[in-house]
Amino acid sequence: MKNAIVSAVIETEAHFHDIDPMNIVWHGNYPRFLELARVALLDKIDYAYDAMVASGYAWPVVEMNIRYAKSIALRDKILVEAAIVEWENRLKIDFEIRHKETNKRLCRAYSTHVAVEMETQTLLWETPPVLRQKLEPFL
Amino acid sequence: MKNAIVSAVIETEAHFHDIDPMNIVWHGNYPRFLELARVALLDKIDYAYDAMVASGYAWPVVEMNIRYAKSIALRDKILVEAAIVEWENRLKIDFEIRHKETNKRLCRAYSTHVAVEMETQTLLWETPPVLRQKLEPFL
Amino acid sequence: MKNAIVSAVIETEAHFHDIDPMNIVWHGNYPRFLELARVALLDKIDYAYDAMVASGYAWPVVEMNIRYAKSIALRDKILVEAAIVEWENRLKIDFEIRHKETNKRLCRAYSTHVAVEMETQTLLWETPPVLRQKLEPFL
Amino acid sequence: MKNAIVSAVIETEAHFHDIDPMNIVWHGNYPRFLELARVALLDKIDYAYDAMVASGYAWPVVEMNIRYAKSIALRDKILVEAAIVEWENRLKIDFEIRHKETNKRLCRAYSTHVAVEMETQTLLWETPPVLRQKLEPFL
Repeated sequence: MKNAIVSAVIETEAHFHDIDPMNIVWHGNYPRFLELARVALLDKIDYAYDAMVASGYAWPVVEMNIRYAKSIALRDKILVEAAIVEWENRLKIDFEIRHKETNKRLCRAYSTHVAVEMETQTLLWETPPVLRQKLEPFL
Repeated sequence: MKNAIVSAVIETEAHFHDIDPMNIVWHGNYPRFLELARVALLDKIDYAYDAMVASGYAWPVVEMNIRYAKSIALRDKILVEAAIVEWENRLKIDFEIRHKETNKRLCRAYSTHVAVEMETQTLLWETPPVLRQKLEPFL
Repeated sequence: MKNAIVSAVIETEAHFHDIDPMNIVWHGNYPRFLELARVALLDKIDYAYDAMVASGYAWPVVEMNIRYAKSIALRDKILVEAAIVEWENRLKIDFEIRHKETNKRLCRAYSTHVAVEMETQTLLWETPPVLRQKLEPFL
Repeated sequence: MKNAIVSAVIETEAHFHDIDPMNIVWHGNYPRFLELARVALLDKIDYAYDAMVASGYAWPVVEMNIRYAKSIALRDKILVEAAIVEWENRLKIDFEIRHKETNKRLCRAYSTHVAVEMETQTLLWETPPVLRQKLEPFL
């Protein structure tokens, strides 16, 4: 993906519990798909949830944006890619969902996160050193 | 409800995100409906989640059983009743879901919970005194 | 809300199943909160899901944006407001979530929808007359 | 599994959105885990949702029972096994969830389903021939 510092792709499929009465994945279920890719991405830089907690920082989502280009049907196999595209002041992750067989893009999304020092509950305007260290191999 | 020591009823409705491709509430979404009634019930005895934590005990679900008699459609208004029916060794809550307009029973369910002393992570085979105190006005 | 043609507010609260390990509502659960307000809004103009289907149009979400200003904790009572702010070419709904007691704004969001003629599966670039009729009393 | 006519196992893990404030998978999220295994099982006999619809029958869940033996933590890798154990009058599927690394059993569950002839909306007390045909290779 464009501007990707580091990225990861996962494969999943649309299950019965994801589908709405219009026979497509309900728009509000996409965040679960994105989460799978976000975790794979954070695993790659060794900074998934447990490591975040251990580092003393939480990274709450401050914005999520999802653009739905084409609908996803039951049993559609999809590839979800997540890429870190910004990290200096906030963490920004871009996402793309593609249909596995046709490779058509079904969805673009992003989430932005800010660091919160857990002990003081202070929101940081600059990324703490730990994230830079984790990203170093990819810069 | 039969054998109810104390009970509570909430009203809710089936929303778009609850409905599956068969145009009925997906069976796996009922636990959210039950939760609404369980919380109203525990509020009534002043022993909802925060009070549980304050008391030093967690009450994990060890069994959940749901019998689906009639399906629930989009926008159906439903009444969910929860009643404590056992408490001496474990906490057992019975549930009924009824259609608000027709009063027809749509679902029966129960959940059983055991007390876990949080400090020692010990499972208790007898209900701790705090629950008896909370239930006293209803015994 | 600013630019609201018509709006509706619902009250709900954060339940146990909405909360994540950080003890706040998981960001991906907000779409369910928004849905409650969207339905109340569409009820007000008599154009909720059943009426949409009857009119021959579906209105899929093409974009959803959520900005999380303050976190929502377990049992927090919240007000979710939804307002139609655009309708001529696409339907745009703005949302605000406020803390019921403090009235503090916790979240802003929007969803945009386009009309799809169900029979032909054609995406329309102009809103079909039915939506104008529904909105007439509010214009 | 005991009495299994045919079975399937899937592997998955507990994600952030599955976890509750007690730092374990919320009990009401297990049905999604079971669904993954149920679909793998029905795929094996070539009778998943699309084939069911094509056959003219729906198979709604009439009972679900879940016994939670040990909790599941964030990132725990789990194996979910589903097995058809009854089919002549109703379809009964037994489930087991095991911890992938320790092989410890975390959960047992079952779901029972009845056939409904979709055209007439009639509930059948005997399994229609199509299910016997699908199961033939495994009997």
